[in-house]
Amino acid sequence: MTEAQVHIYEVSPRDGLQNEAAVVRTEDKLALIDGLARTGVRDIEVTSFVRPSWIPQLADAAELVPQLPAHEGVRYWALIPNMRGLDRALDAGIGHVATFMSASETHNKKNLNRTRRESLATLDQVISTAKDAQLTVRAYISTVFGCPYEGTVDVERTVQIAQSLRQAGADVIALGDTTGMGNPTLVREVVAAMVRGGVPLSSIALHMHDTRGTALANILAGYEAGVRIFDGSVAGVGGCPYAPGASGNAATEDLVHMFEAMGHGTGIDLERLAETGVKLGEVLGRPLPGRYHLYHLGTQARRQRSSQSA
Amino acid sequence: MTEAQVHIYEVSPRDGLQNEAAVVRTEDKLALIDGLARTGVRDIEVTSFVRPSWIPQLADAAELVPQLPAHEGVRYWALIPNMRGLDRALDAGIGHVATFMSASETHNKKNLNRTRRESLATLDQVISTAKDAQLTVRAYISTVFGCPYEGTVDVERTVQIAQSLRQAGADVIALGDTTGMGNPTLVREVVAAMVRGGVPLSSIALHMHDTRGTALANILAGYEAGVRIFDGSVAGVGGCPYAPGASGNAATEDLVHMFEAMGHGTGIDLERLAETGVKLGEVLGRPLPGRYHLYHLGTQARRQRSSQSA
Repeated sequence: MTEAQVHIYEVSPRDGLQNEAAVVRTEDKLALIDGLARTGVRDIEVTSFVRPSWIPQLADAAELVPQLPAHEGVRYWALIPNMRGLDRALDAGIGHVATFMSASETHNKKNLNRTRRESLATLDQVISTAKDAQLTVRAYISTVFGCPYEGTVDVERTVQIAQSLRQAGADVIALGDTTGMGNPTLVREVVAAMVRGGVPLSSIALHMHDTRGTALANILAGYEAGVRIFDGSVAGVGGCPYAPGASGNAATEDLVHMFEAMGHGTGIDLERLAETGVKLGEVLGRPLPGRYHLYHLGTQARRQRSSQSA
Repeated sequence: MTEAQVHIYEVSPRDGLQNEAAVVRTEDKLALIDGLARTGVRDIEVTSFVRPSWIPQLADAAELVPQLPAHEGVRYWALIPNMRGLDRALDAGIGHVATFMSASETHNKKNLNRTRRESLATLDQVISTAKDAQLTVRAYISTVFGCPYEGTVDVERTVQIAQSLRQAGADVIALGDTTGMGNPTLVREVVAAMVRGGVPLSSIALHMHDTRGTALANILAGYEAGVRIFDGSVAGVGGCPYAPGASGNAATEDLVHMFEAMGHGTGIDLERLAETGVKLGEVLGRPLPGRYHLYHLGTQARRQRSSQSA
């Protein structure tokens, strides 16, 4: 397989499953993660070390992490909200962690029960401690492209947050469109402001939601602005439980299909990825929203019909 | 309302409804068309004068057209396959017609039961007759961005077809991604080839399907290549019954939302459009796939819940 030109960061085991009503069994999560790793995905966010009572779907984090399947070159990431989460993540033996806060003050307060300033102080400690422990650190900034409570979000304030998180040691700044309010013009504007503010393109990831259908168009705009890391959730599972109207991470199959069709390699086997999405749909027992996923299911159904009628 | 910078061509009454299992009553179609016209949409493809037994869903074309609601500035279009269809359309009193053929030989034969050369000869007569009768003519070329039977489609051959249709008198060349196989790079390539071949940008429309999730990204690429006419189907209804795997026109709400968010005016009231999509879903009695449509339904449901609990 040639070197990937586009890097896909897979969030389904964490961001996808935390928004499912059903609690998925640890062994089914491990099968999902193993399936994803075998498609060629190199970065997988597998769980979250938030307080187990907050998100029962991910309460098995400490049992899951030590059982993660070994795959050369695959990096497993866990979401952590604070020092307590970092301690638990370190105890479990994860090598890569993701912190999070909001670009919008109101969303930060509703989601994290503290001001952005308080979050920055916490994350400064969390990130520097994680770096001292040789971990790789991703720092999510959510509601970058719009806040369900405040509407427009100030781009320069977001750049300042990104600068602070970079100074604390974050390797990757993941810009989140938490409720799918972004548009291609705004994506270009935010990326350009980040670059002007000294945040290197190579450290920027885009985490786009498809709430209003713009995820892929926004990702295309991001690619053309020089971003190369994009978050996806297989079959389009996931959303944000704290944001009204939010539904749907960008579906990884849709990203991989688009980039590969454009000639930009992802290093991922699309057919295998689609099969992984089908299996996840079977585990969850509900229809999943990804476009390519639905197309793939339709193709399978037609093949089955024509082999039965032959 | 300011002059639109992006022109939306609405296909739901024809391309949407012809792919529905249910036959929608003429009065419900008229209500849909009236609703669409009241949103600010200026071009609506209302029906098709193909043989009624081919597409029972549109068999009421001759009754529908004389009853179309008068709205200043709104242009109603009908799809016609041949001279017989044109005669029926003229008898019914339509002012704008759309012809069609495929870029791919195999798809043309399967869809129209004739070669591309035979189609071009037919359309040459149909288009020149329509122009003599003072009609505006749109000429669809389908499978431009990929054929479900042949795969890759030769771009230069498509340009030749477009040139022939333009010479015959077609005002608009609508490039169709019949089964959603396009990607942004290919869209740019095709549009550039058209321009090099003397097909003016102002005469090009893009008719994109969202089968694999790329419709809006492709439309964005088309916009940036200079195209300004885009086809949409409210709430995402429609597809192509002759193409395996095809499903879903780009949803008009998604287009309007994206362009308006980017600051490119469409002249369309998004909220009214979304309500028109909701009504269409009620008439059809099945879930419709548009992303913004689903977001809008979710927002409505939450409002209802909170007003009940208040």
